[in-house]
Amino acid sequence: MGNVSQPIDLRSDTVTKPTRDMLEAMSRADLGDDFFRDDPTVLAFEEEAADLLGLEAAMLVISGTMGNIVSCMALSSRGESFIVESRAHIQINESGWPSTLAGLTPRPITGTNGAISPGALEETIQDSRSRLGVPSRLLCLENTHNAAGGRVMVPWQIATLAGIAHSNGLRVHLDGARIFNASVALGRPVRDFVRDVDTATFCLSKGLSCPLGAVVAGGADVIKEARRWRQVVGGGMRQAGVIAAAGQVALRSMVDRLQQDHENATVLASRLEAAGVDIDVQAVETNILFVNLPVRGFDPLLFHAGLLEKGVVVNPPKGGRVRLVVHRHVSKSDAMAAADLFVEAFHAAC
Amino acid sequence: MGNVSQPIDLRSDTVTKPTRDMLEAMSRADLGDDFFRDDPTVLAFEEEAADLLGLEAAMLVISGTMGNIVSCMALSSRGESFIVESRAHIQINESGWPSTLAGLTPRPITGTNGAISPGALEETIQDSRSRLGVPSRLLCLENTHNAAGGRVMVPWQIATLAGIAHSNGLRVHLDGARIFNASVALGRPVRDFVRDVDTATFCLSKGLSCPLGAVVAGGADVIKEARRWRQVVGGGMRQAGVIAAAGQVALRSMVDRLQQDHENATVLASRLEAAGVDIDVQAVETNILFVNLPVRGFDPLLFHAGLLEKGVVVNPPKGGRVRLVVHRHVSKSDAMAAADLFVEAFHAAC
Amino acid sequence: MGNVSQPIDLRSDTVTKPTRDMLEAMSRADLGDDFFRDDPTVLAFEEEAADLLGLEAAMLVISGTMGNIVSCMALSSRGESFIVESRAHIQINESGWPSTLAGLTPRPITGTNGAISPGALEETIQDSRSRLGVPSRLLCLENTHNAAGGRVMVPWQIATLAGIAHSNGLRVHLDGARIFNASVALGRPVRDFVRDVDTATFCLSKGLSCPLGAVVAGGADVIKEARRWRQVVGGGMRQAGVIAAAGQVALRSMVDRLQQDHENATVLASRLEAAGVDIDVQAVETNILFVNLPVRGFDPLLFHAGLLEKGVVVNPPKGGRVRLVVHRHVSKSDAMAAADLFVEAFHAAC
Amino acid sequence: MGNVSQPIDLRSDTVTKPTRDMLEAMSRADLGDDFFRDDPTVLAFEEEAADLLGLEAAMLVISGTMGNIVSCMALSSRGESFIVESRAHIQINESGWPSTLAGLTPRPITGTNGAISPGALEETIQDSRSRLGVPSRLLCLENTHNAAGGRVMVPWQIATLAGIAHSNGLRVHLDGARIFNASVALGRPVRDFVRDVDTATFCLSKGLSCPLGAVVAGGADVIKEARRWRQVVGGGMRQAGVIAAAGQVALRSMVDRLQQDHENATVLASRLEAAGVDIDVQAVETNILFVNLPVRGFDPLLFHAGLLEKGVVVNPPKGGRVRLVVHRHVSKSDAMAAADLFVEAFHAAC
Ligand SMILES: [Ca+2]
Ligand SMILES: [Ca+2]
Ligand SMILES: [Ca+2]
Ligand SMILES: [Ca+2]
Ligand SMILES: [Ca+2]
Ligand SMILES: [Ca+2]
Repeated sequence: MGNVSQPIDLRSDTVTKPTRDMLEAMSRADLGDDFFRDDPTVLAFEEEAADLLGLEAAMLVISGTMGNIVSCMALSSRGESFIVESRAHIQINESGWPSTLAGLTPRPITGTNGAISPGALEETIQDSRSRLGVPSRLLCLENTHNAAGGRVMVPWQIATLAGIAHSNGLRVHLDGARIFNASVALGRPVRDFVRDVDTATFCLSKGLSCPLGAVVAGGADVIKEARRWRQVVGGGMRQAGVIAAAGQVALRSMVDRLQQDHENATVLASRLEAAGVDIDVQAVETNILFVNLPVRGFDPLLFHAGLLEKGVVVNPPKGGRVRLVVHRHVSKSDAMAAADLFVEAFHAAC
Repeated sequence: MGNVSQPIDLRSDTVTKPTRDMLEAMSRADLGDDFFRDDPTVLAFEEEAADLLGLEAAMLVISGTMGNIVSCMALSSRGESFIVESRAHIQINESGWPSTLAGLTPRPITGTNGAISPGALEETIQDSRSRLGVPSRLLCLENTHNAAGGRVMVPWQIATLAGIAHSNGLRVHLDGARIFNASVALGRPVRDFVRDVDTATFCLSKGLSCPLGAVVAGGADVIKEARRWRQVVGGGMRQAGVIAAAGQVALRSMVDRLQQDHENATVLASRLEAAGVDIDVQAVETNILFVNLPVRGFDPLLFHAGLLEKGVVVNPPKGGRVRLVVHRHVSKSDAMAAADLFVEAFHAAC
Repeated sequence: MGNVSQPIDLRSDTVTKPTRDMLEAMSRADLGDDFFRDDPTVLAFEEEAADLLGLEAAMLVISGTMGNIVSCMALSSRGESFIVESRAHIQINESGWPSTLAGLTPRPITGTNGAISPGALEETIQDSRSRLGVPSRLLCLENTHNAAGGRVMVPWQIATLAGIAHSNGLRVHLDGARIFNASVALGRPVRDFVRDVDTATFCLSKGLSCPLGAVVAGGADVIKEARRWRQVVGGGMRQAGVIAAAGQVALRSMVDRLQQDHENATVLASRLEAAGVDIDVQAVETNILFVNLPVRGFDPLLFHAGLLEKGVVVNPPKGGRVRLVVHRHVSKSDAMAAADLFVEAFHAAC
Repeated sequence: MGNVSQPIDLRSDTVTKPTRDMLEAMSRADLGDDFFRDDPTVLAFEEEAADLLGLEAAMLVISGTMGNIVSCMALSSRGESFIVESRAHIQINESGWPSTLAGLTPRPITGTNGAISPGALEETIQDSRSRLGVPSRLLCLENTHNAAGGRVMVPWQIATLAGIAHSNGLRVHLDGARIFNASVALGRPVRDFVRDVDTATFCLSKGLSCPLGAVVAGGADVIKEARRWRQVVGGGMRQAGVIAAAGQVALRSMVDRLQQDHENATVLASRLEAAGVDIDVQAVETNILFVNLPVRGFDPLLFHAGLLEKGVVVNPPKGGRVRLVVHRHVSKSDAMAAADLFVEAFHAAC
């Protein structure tokens, strides 16, 4: 259970701290200057990551957002539009880099469970070709989809959308910040989720528990181009083997355990549902839950503060919902305790 | 009536040709090099336009889109977002300059009859302030609203929205491409529609019948800044008095006659409605009509071609609707004839 | 001689006013909406301009700067560099659009008489390919070169530089604002000056005496792309036939007379030199002169004001020189009078 | 002496590897999610860095380039120009981010020993204000100046240039990648070098031997703004305490030892000079040396390969010079050995 000294932190899986194995690997890693491609740990890690994804090449970056930036810049030109689900991380949580830095106009489509429909995709592409439109040349997917509640897009959905995109001359980027959650949830190898896209990113710092870092992967040419863009945005690194070393531990030992997070998320959701809270347990496919809060007769600020006081940390509710994210520091008993404390705080705020 | 040699052109009021008076004024105009501010006709026209709008300063530009560009660039900085109705001309018909050129992220809000609601505006502004958001510093309004069917936003609506914007630190730009249509429709002076905004544009080349040109108006400082941006986008002009001279004729003699276009639009709409076509006559406030086409059992391509063959030119239907725009070259009898021909082509396509 | 009511204006050839023939052509022109490609005068003019240059396609724009913008945007992508002479108009007199709008980094090379050397071009291209450089994909030339004093780059120089550029994967744009001056000066057809470049612009509003406008020409594909960029920067026009009509007159009747401007420029230069002013008559190849002013014992403000008072208008001296531009409104006797008045004002300022 | 297994690496001080103390600090560091400002090590480090510089606030970034990017974006707006020495790192070694990302036009000035002259600064500012110029609002300085050979700009020079800038409405950024080298070389506290600027960056990964990271410092407001820009470019980090922990060790124990690098650089330079190599020992103020190579009768590729074979690693010569950088992994005896091997390879290449 959460107490003052050790709250249960459900804000994000980014709060995960490195394991002892990671810290040891970091301090023992063979290092060099990655600008000169001299860091053996980075080189080995990038190769391992590319192999795991079944793609030609990979590159370490400092964050998932940077992975999205350099991928999309490598795949696009100024003055084009890109198509993205309207609640995707790129669209609502990445500080506007597409328009600010890349000269890209967003053309958002509202999807179902984070997945846009093939029909809407085709229509939006056609629309973008009008004489006063902004031609679309890039489709961005997100899997699992954060704002949709960690929902999984299955490989055939990706193949369908990427097929439409490619046959219309668009490139495809997958924001796979939590692609290993999708892989584990479906019990299918991660490469099945990326084979149809031009670039894919995944995060080391979320469920995989690393302190820092993300990976961009794709064909050798596009990764070469992305490497140049990483330099442009100031993301070049030197003895980056310290980050890669933790990444190696993550790829080898932290992927399978995501299953535990998913189970604990279901435990948390079920217990909340059993207590009458508005949550759809069937919709909990991975490690993210959204609880709908009452519109009337409910004080979200009081709820948020009360929950914090009880030792459960969440982000402030927004848009009538509160997000709960399960990760390595949330045990099954934490999940149960968090559910009970949630219910207490909930009733106190009614 | 439309015949082969003289079709009835309902594509846009931009097709209006200059009047004989305009052409004479153009050829008689006192000219100079406007870069040096030496063109007396431009100087006089800009002053006249500013006075008419009740604003400090005005500037001639070559197009309404350029007016929007230089206004918004003068009012914003890179890396900000701007709020705009989701079907506004800037959002869907201006080739994506906000993201492409200005580093501005669109935050569209779907409105009613082209007007966004005060509540949605406030919420979007707050949202934009989140740590991963893109701070909004600019609100763009459009009046009359083209894609909403030439709907008029009344002065108190503008005042309300501008008030919310200003009290939250946003500047306000009015895309008044057809602001004189709004003014004439309500029977209120045009200055009532611009007094609450920081910049406003209007087009000379639409209902006012000029061959070219638009005007940007606002405070002296912002117009000075917009003048620099006009140079940046390549919009600086030399003996621009030839354009301004037509503009002078337009401001003096072409505004009141817009009433005629509005009446003819109503004639056209009423006749269509009487024939059973899906159109809301009450919604026709100015010179633009949208007709909803049947979703099933209707061939829009056949309809479009058939109408053209009968001598009525419209843009291809899009999104299940067809737009009809009335202007100086569409007389009352043209409007009636166009309605009848529309109905014929319509039935042939069912 | 210049008098109060009719000063001799040597600031720029942009001050030229339309001829009576132009104004008549403008008022008689067949017009249409060029957005719909319905303006017959624009269509005919663009074809005539393309033919004259021996290029596939041409497009009317409102200014030479806009011609440079849309050409370069069509030929480049964000994040590249472009190579340009360090005193070229694009580099010093176009308000910074390359970095501001196009994401292009300037890599200026100082040339001789406005022409960069082949060796420096090759070296700069190679340099740009370094891992921390900005890859060059565009070369911009200017002919005649304004800041170099209207100097002419001969066709083999253009061919040499363009050849180096193309063999290194760069595209080539020619800012030919005054390309007809080059053509007339060398007595060679204008097409000889543009056959090796991807896009070329020329101005209607300078020596050719039009009130407004410029032309972009090149291959059909690149002009199609440039047309889209013209829309993005707000340069789309409606009944642009009024501008094109003047352009037609210019192409047919104003080119050959540039020879007169060149002769008058030489008259002016010779008379100044004879009076002991620091000017290189041999360097006067077309209609632009630069006079070097004394560094010490000379008051440039006094000189400028004095000259103005005597009825000769020039731009304020800058960088120790004053520019004199001869054009259609400067007759031979004006040139002689201007020289004498210059000398008077010069001595008064020593 | 360099041998096969342990070459003497003079390419850059970025090749420095973390010390044992750093690695231990990294593995023991108290960590949290810096996005939530929950990482105590980051917070403490940022405060320590700000205090050391005598500035209000500081922020950790992943690279010096990113530090320059986010500082300059916080201090500028799109469409402005910035003034910078023509061989500054920002101008030639940062992949063109100013034009590519920030809409900033470079206005380079060639300085002496990396320092631009006050007169040239004033003139360039004035020039930028012309009607067709790009207004300068930012001055970027670099200290020590890499391409000038690690030359030190003394505090009064910074004060003079910053004074001119500020009194003309420009903000000032100091690229202090090696500012501690300047501080140690002059024996003056680092705060003396930053008190007149708006933002300053320094690198952890160079002479200070950290694996990764740099710091941006300045007033609280500008650092807040820079923090937003760090997010925009994808530089946000999570458990960044692992980087900050090494930074703490660096600030406490790696600054004074830079003196040793400077001494060894002088040893290297003196020994080269004594052997007749073209190097100016007086110009070696810190840890960077440039050796001028013969223009004729010298094979730079052979020299580079020969030196590498002998166990001395340098970057390929460029522009007729080769750079040698001394750092923690270059002992005094390494410096002497490197000089001797350099001379051998040099003669073999003549
Ligand atoms: Ca983590
Ligand atoms: Ca018109
Ligand atoms: Ca942009
Ligand atoms: Ca002219
Ligand atoms: Ca830019
Ligand atoms: Ca290092």
